[in-house]
Amino acid sequence: MSFTTTAEIAQFGGKLYKLSHNSVTTKTKMDVNVFVPSKKDESTKLPVLLYLSGLTCTPNNASEKSFFQYFAAKYGFAIVFPDTSPRGANIAGEDDSWDFGTGAGFYVDATTDPWKNNYKMYSYVHEELQSELASQFPDLDFSRISITGHSMGGFGALSGFLKNPGKYQSVSAFSPISNPSTCPWGEKNFGNYLGPDKEAWYKYDPTHLIKEYSHENQPTILIHQGKSDGFYKDKQLQPEIFEAAAKDAGYKGGVDLNIVEGYDHSYFFIATFVEDHAKHHAKYLGLVE
Amino acid sequence: MSFTTTAEIAQFGGKLYKLSHNSVTTKTKMDVNVFVPSKKDESTKLPVLLYLSGLTCTPNNASEKSFFQYFAAKYGFAIVFPDTSPRGANIAGEDDSWDFGTGAGFYVDATTDPWKNNYKMYSYVHEELQSELASQFPDLDFSRISITGHSMGGFGALSGFLKNPGKYQSVSAFSPISNPSTCPWGEKNFGNYLGPDKEAWYKYDPTHLIKEYSHENQPTILIHQGKSDGFYKDKQLQPEIFEAAAKDAGYKGGVDLNIVEGYDHSYFFIATFVEDHAKHHAKYLGLVE
Repeated sequence: MSFTTTAEIAQFGGKLYKLSHNSVTTKTKMDVNVFVPSKKDESTKLPVLLYLSGLTCTPNNASEKSFFQYFAAKYGFAIVFPDTSPRGANIAGEDDSWDFGTGAGFYVDATTDPWKNNYKMYSYVHEELQSELASQFPDLDFSRISITGHSMGGFGALSGFLKNPGKYQSVSAFSPISNPSTCPWGEKNFGNYLGPDKEAWYKYDPTHLIKEYSHENQPTILIHQGKSDGFYKDKQLQPEIFEAAAKDAGYKGGVDLNIVEGYDHSYFFIATFVEDHAKHHAKYLGLVE
Repeated sequence: MSFTTTAEIAQFGGKLYKLSHNSVTTKTKMDVNVFVPSKKDESTKLPVLLYLSGLTCTPNNASEKSFFQYFAAKYGFAIVFPDTSPRGANIAGEDDSWDFGTGAGFYVDATTDPWKNNYKMYSYVHEELQSELASQFPDLDFSRISITGHSMGGFGALSGFLKNPGKYQSVSAFSPISNPSTCPWGEKNFGNYLGPDKEAWYKYDPTHLIKEYSHENQPTILIHQGKSDGFYKDKQLQPEIFEAAAKDAGYKGGVDLNIVEGYDHSYFFIATFVEDHAKHHAKYLGLVE
């Protein structure tokens, strides 16, 4: 088996597995947490929700604080919580910033030196990790998969959904970085990982990608954004620009953008709205009407 | 106002307040978190659940990881998360152990030197804190209050309920230290805070207190205990001894002791069973049938 189990924790009638493995994509050891609820029906496999975390996070933050597992157990889907970057790649400067490098892989495949050897989080989360987990957990059905995430991970979810037409049955995001080509976080990370050519940035930017999206799979894109979120005020997130781009592009499912009064950027905000997101994905995964 | 608000965080339609105040009881600054849900009916005050945390915890651990607030919002009660000890009393040795001193006030009023000047967590959580919060939050009704807690805090809940007949409408506990007079944690803390005379220990020990309890308020005592909890295996917790003592004493409500297969001592365990405990208290607080 390709994964080492560092902990196996009973929760909500299921199990939270803390795993690590040696990734061929990032060439580092990678940690991942997987929640597997108890099966209601032994004969069918469980669908999967991929949860991409925000800047600085490990797989543990959302596992401990999002409360997603309660609803995953209720509806009957597994959750995969990947890490947010390679760790221990020993690249000069990777630990200098909280919002770039370690803990900030930004879910892209870096094309520049010195990052391109390890910082391949796009291929890691959408390809290698899923195929490795499918082998490790035969009860999980990675052909029935939805995607969500928070902040940088909300960007990763929107971007990953739009770049893989038909792969993810549904998508949602909590305070996503929605137009990274035009915000400081995006400029810093795209500039470093992808170089100065903005055409390369647009290939990951949800606001650009949705303009070219033509696949028939066009589920409603559910987004929650706290109105008191300092990063929202600082225009790092900009969900309205993404919403407008989806409308202009005629995206059929539409963007269900909820700007919620008083909420911030924290896990307290996420935990409040996971119920809505879990219901949303359960519907598209065929678990509820 | 006697409290300083260090944060006010929107959550589940209500607010989590992170507060601090100067306690006359402990003679130190004390932190406390309070969750206040939105009121369903403007004319009535909200009842309160007091949640006592375990060894090493601050008010933040349970606030971030228990998910009690989700159910508090659903049923309509506030939650008070006190700290677990004085901090910064500057007593020699108070920071030497993880299971004694700072972070381990053990919800007793110390009677020995050098602890008796500050380590008065019993009076603090059952008296001063509640009367101060009642002034700060006129919408909360501290005459309708129930109590719960985890581990050392589970002990504090059982002990506090039994030592204050009629005060708490209901009590529950997660993996409580149920017979501290006969376990290593209890011997260490009672011995240091209360001295060697075991008669003084019995005045806090739930297994002794329930034998003398005669008040008419005898609600069912709900307890969950993980069977894979290492501290349970090490006989630090011993809920069966408390259950047997309640039965011998003819405690009318009985002890609803649930030894749950596979579960450990962590917040993952707590979060799994808070729904049952929230329902239990909501019933005794008159919020549900």
